[in-house]
Amino acid sequence: MKYGIVVFPSKKLQDLANTYRKRYDSHYSKITPHITLKEAFEADETEINKISETVASIAKKYAPLNIHASRISSFFPTTNVIFFRIEPTEQLTSLHQELQNQVNIGKPKHVFIPHITIAQDLTATEHDDIYGQLRMIGVNEQETIDRIHLVYQLEDGSWTTYETYRFTGAE
Amino acid sequence: MKYGIVVFPSKKLQDLANTYRKRYDSHYSKITPHITLKEAFEADETEINKISETVASIAKKYAPLNIHASRISSFFPTTNVIFFRIEPTEQLTSLHQELQNQVNIGKPKHVFIPHITIAQDLTATEHDDIYGQLRMIGVNEQETIDRIHLVYQLEDGSWTTYETYRFTGAE
Repeated sequence: MKYGIVVFPSKKLQDLANTYRKRYDSHYSKITPHITLKEAFEADETEINKISETVASIAKKYAPLNIHASRISSFFPTTNVIFFRIEPTEQLTSLHQELQNQVNIGKPKHVFIPHITIAQDLTATEHDDIYGQLRMIGVNEQETIDRIHLVYQLEDGSWTTYETYRFTGAE
Repeated sequence: MKYGIVVFPSKKLQDLANTYRKRYDSHYSKITPHITLKEAFEADETEINKISETVASIAKKYAPLNIHASRISSFFPTTNVIFFRIEPTEQLTSLHQELQNQVNIGKPKHVFIPHITIAQDLTATEHDDIYGQLRMIGVNEQETIDRIHLVYQLEDGSWTTYETYRFTGAE
């Protein structure tokens, strides 16, 4: 089964992201707006129990995440993905690294750039048009996220939460 | 904010439900297949903390839920909803009742008939056609669900998990 580890921002920020996603994001209906902390990986039922314990113990170490969605950016020319940039912090980087090291399945495909995707699977022309518009509008939202989600994927590509863990630590 | 309390069946049963839902269920993209234990209710941030504690304490009392999706049925003529019928058990009824009594917000609109919706918002003719076909195919799946989800709704109608709780009790 395919799993992933994400955090969901507040309803307010998810609603804002969805105003763009419903028009521009091919994955709009598969999962609500999120920040990916560990990309999709394969695990079986025995492994996932252990992974769940690992995530639980990591969540116990970390304080709720302070995030700042500071501007609208793009991964072009690597991919035509437009996103809310989340300012990198030591906390986010360290959490990502620790998940990667301890849930030691799969290599990250990209350098970790925390973000909330708002557009993907665009043609080059669409990307340029939309990015031009959205960059001007921008985004500026700060908030605290107090839990992390282990999610799994169904055959149709949609994601369901397997378990949630609260950040209750000090780091 | 609008909240609800649900359990998600196994990936296998969700995948099966989605083979019908993607064609016949207008809510297909809003939430993955589930059994509703408490219908949507309004709560603010202070209330939801208390409700979360309540659900946590109820989950600690109950053993993982044994469910049996035994046949395909319909709420016609009340509504044109077609669903996997989940055999009522003392455990399910008692859990539903306890959630209703302790999370004392909103009255249930219907008698509790545990089910997984696979079709809704059909015309009368569509309902009759599709129900006739699906009833013949039927369903027969037994499984155990070991966690319960508190979910909330975004402005576009989609649902995100707020928190999960494991059934760790004996009832």
